[in-house]
Amino acid sequence: MELGEIAIALGLPLEGDPEIEIKGLAGLVDAGEGELSFVTGPRYRDAVDSSLASAFLAPPDFDLGGRACLRSAQPYPDFTRAIELLSPERATPLEVHPTAVIGDRVELGRDVSIGAYAVLGDDVYIGGRSRIDPHVTIYPDCTIGRDCTVHAGARLHSRVRIGDRVVIHSGAVIGSQGFGFAFRTDGTRARVPHRAGVVIEDDAEIGANTTIDASQAAHAHDAQGRASTRIGRGVKIDNQVQVAHGCEVGDGSTLCAGAGIAGSTRIGKNVFFGGLSATSGNLSVADGTVVLGMSGVMSDTEPGAQLVGVPVLPRRLFFRILAASKRLPELLKRVDRLERRLP
Amino acid sequence: MELGEIAIALGLPLEGDPEIEIKGLAGLVDAGEGELSFVTGPRYRDAVDSSLASAFLAPPDFDLGGRACLRSAQPYPDFTRAIELLSPERATPLEVHPTAVIGDRVELGRDVSIGAYAVLGDDVYIGGRSRIDPHVTIYPDCTIGRDCTVHAGARLHSRVRIGDRVVIHSGAVIGSQGFGFAFRTDGTRARVPHRAGVVIEDDAEIGANTTIDASQAAHAHDAQGRASTRIGRGVKIDNQVQVAHGCEVGDGSTLCAGAGIAGSTRIGKNVFFGGLSATSGNLSVADGTVVLGMSGVMSDTEPGAQLVGVPVLPRRLFFRILAASKRLPELLKRVDRLERRLP
Amino acid sequence: MELGEIAIALGLPLEGDPEIEIKGLAGLVDAGEGELSFVTGPRYRDAVDSSLASAFLAPPDFDLGGRACLRSAQPYPDFTRAIELLSPERATPLEVHPTAVIGDRVELGRDVSIGAYAVLGDDVYIGGRSRIDPHVTIYPDCTIGRDCTVHAGARLHSRVRIGDRVVIHSGAVIGSQGFGFAFRTDGTRARVPHRAGVVIEDDAEIGANTTIDASQAAHAHDAQGRASTRIGRGVKIDNQVQVAHGCEVGDGSTLCAGAGIAGSTRIGKNVFFGGLSATSGNLSVADGTVVLGMSGVMSDTEPGAQLVGVPVLPRRLFFRILAASKRLPELLKRVDRLERRLP
Repeated sequence: MELGEIAIALGLPLEGDPEIEIKGLAGLVDAGEGELSFVTGPRYRDAVDSSLASAFLAPPDFDLGGRACLRSAQPYPDFTRAIELLSPERATPLEVHPTAVIGDRVELGRDVSIGAYAVLGDDVYIGGRSRIDPHVTIYPDCTIGRDCTVHAGARLHSRVRIGDRVVIHSGAVIGSQGFGFAFRTDGTRARVPHRAGVVIEDDAEIGANTTIDASQAAHAHDAQGRASTRIGRGVKIDNQVQVAHGCEVGDGSTLCAGAGIAGSTRIGKNVFFGGLSATSGNLSVADGTVVLGMSGVMSDTEPGAQLVGVPVLPRRLFFRILAASKRLPELLKRVDRLERRLP
Repeated sequence: MELGEIAIALGLPLEGDPEIEIKGLAGLVDAGEGELSFVTGPRYRDAVDSSLASAFLAPPDFDLGGRACLRSAQPYPDFTRAIELLSPERATPLEVHPTAVIGDRVELGRDVSIGAYAVLGDDVYIGGRSRIDPHVTIYPDCTIGRDCTVHAGARLHSRVRIGDRVVIHSGAVIGSQGFGFAFRTDGTRARVPHRAGVVIEDDAEIGANTTIDASQAAHAHDAQGRASTRIGRGVKIDNQVQVAHGCEVGDGSTLCAGAGIAGSTRIGKNVFFGGLSATSGNLSVADGTVVLGMSGVMSDTEPGAQLVGVPVLPRRLFFRILAASKRLPELLKRVDRLERRLP
Repeated sequence: MELGEIAIALGLPLEGDPEIEIKGLAGLVDAGEGELSFVTGPRYRDAVDSSLASAFLAPPDFDLGGRACLRSAQPYPDFTRAIELLSPERATPLEVHPTAVIGDRVELGRDVSIGAYAVLGDDVYIGGRSRIDPHVTIYPDCTIGRDCTVHAGARLHSRVRIGDRVVIHSGAVIGSQGFGFAFRTDGTRARVPHRAGVVIEDDAEIGANTTIDASQAAHAHDAQGRASTRIGRGVKIDNQVQVAHGCEVGDGSTLCAGAGIAGSTRIGKNVFFGGLSATSGNLSVADGTVVLGMSGVMSDTEPGAQLVGVPVLPRRLFFRILAASKRLPELLKRVDRLERRLP
């Protein structure tokens, strides 16, 4: 595709030869001739100068010394659009595959795609242009908004309500029963039914094989889903994350792979949990908290706190203790020596 | 539903007006008018007094000052029964869905439900009233007892034997091959076949996307399954837990989300593993051991031990060391000072 | 089966009575009469002497005092072959099940088995004698070599290329989108498309519910897959492991259950990651590195390093610090005392 065509498709101003043929896309270091790259700011000055790319997506004020570029206020997001343009996914046929099993009172919006062997229970609604891949199970009473993608083998249990532009990756299980039991007097346990479902708001993304449990029916008839486990707007959840019953994950937060959020935890906005990090239940993680990987939060956090360790400590304190602990074996010897000299 | 009807359905004695209309259920704090709540003991005295609930499930001796109640020796388990009563799940049709693929010599008990696109291999037995949801795969030579539920997309590999009233959640993989390999002389590895299957006893529950591997064929022809990976009676396993080949999990134990039990570990009765905790292989975890979240057991444990850390320490010692370690950076300075004064 | 028949089938020299009837296989301790066991070297001398096994697989120079045996240079791998011989899996029918949905331009090698309700997208190639179990989803543009097994409910997304003799266990998700987003100027995030797929080389094994993400399209048109996430030859990956976008796992490496490898990490050959261990992204783990369970690698490692802790320390240092830390509460008191005496 010619650079000029890309400029028009992305709606970006072009500087340089519009007839440059763009055959691929790559980062500054990997890009070769005929490839489009991108630069986000001045600290990539040297990388741009030595890059073999034939053209760049670059901020308006970045001096490219006359090399071809598309000007963009947000070069990386526009680079992702360029990938979609040059290397589009195959179109999914806009059809309900004849093998799909569709329950009663199912409503499908326009241009919905339902894959082979998908199973939709009764009273399911799927918004326009959403795509349900093969082998997906949707239990009764679920709602999915517009422009969503549910990848192969994801499971939506009853009373899952999903907004618009949400992506659910393969093997994710949404709305399974929360891990709650009531001890009987004989020591056995009765399952606590979890009937309040899960709400996933617009633009969220749920990773492969992630599990998000339904909330207990705090209010059994809460039609508004106030009592549901709730994943906020724009939340990005990686693979194999566990979100237990009754949690709230605030808008814009990020949960990296393997993170585990215990029951009824309230996570604020723009919180970050690193890989394999976790919380105990029933606590509040304040807006902007950053929890590093493999760290465990056992009590409420302050807004913007940077935390690490099990249980977590403030980041600076953790690394100071870590550095000091390396001197601990020697410290024991030094104290031995002092004691010998001061008997 | 009127309170009197609930009393009759649950078989509990009523105090107060039987015509109170109960519209929902909630905890003491969340409950509003027209809702049923529950109280388990005297420490909820104040919460009951300020609760807006219209009726309570309460122990026989709990003074409610005349407010309406159902008397119960076990209010929380009876509350779960009340949820089932007021907010029942949709009934699953008692049918073998016409799309289910059923192998040879499959026996189904009475009132079994088999969902759309379920696949049952040869020589499978399913007990009465059990429910197999859509997209479940059952390999040949599996047995499932009565009143079980296997949720969508669970996989049972060959030689899995499941008792009565067991629940397998979506995406769980039971009886996959254990992670065992034999090094050849050229440095490559031969897979060790794991043919002894998995036994899951009555009333156990297996979480979503949990994996439980089959045991190696210690005795290749052990028809009794003595050599199998074994999940005891009433064991509750949360989501995304890993139980490796040849493990035993004793009756009544609990494994929280993300826990990992390495090969051939023997876990006693009523053991608790917190989220993301783990063991090394080939060890014994004694009855009643409590392992806190994100902790790693590397050797045998004593009955009733409370353990935390990687590797685990007794709980009190762990927290004493943790508290002391916060003083470590300062301690280094103090010892520096002492040494300067005692040259 | 008679011992002589086993000797012929395995191609191993027999010592002793060829008519001994072998009814099962077991380790030295568990084996009873009529069972075949194996011994790998002199340190099992006593276990052999007290074993009730009727015959052994044993190295050429191991003195069995006249007891029946099959001589083998690699007794454990040959024992796995004996398990296959005496306790074979049921044969899978060599058919494309009539319910399988097969896309356009799909090529199947000889003697391929495709299970019930498997879905193969367009332009998929499956090599000879490979077996695709029920409920497997294969998106378009995937290649699978010869003699592979893909267990029930595994998902292969587009552009996954798999070598020969690879095993993919149930619920594994290969080629899902990497967890990468580009912040827009309004604070929302655009998904970065990951179009470079995954390459899995010969003899690798991928555990149940493991997830391996596709790489970003560093070179969007890289037909050779150089930019793909890459799992090397003979790599063994356990259950519930996460391998993020753009990682390389070198030949012969081992990732135990629950391990998490963050994006763009390069893992060398014959590396070992214990259960629930992890790395940060963009680093290099050198050949032969051993990372113990629940440990976190945050920087490049040296070849053959043995590492433990979060973040990792050399194994000996970690355990010295651990031992010293147990004396820390007492150390604080000792320094208090010293200070009192030296005011």
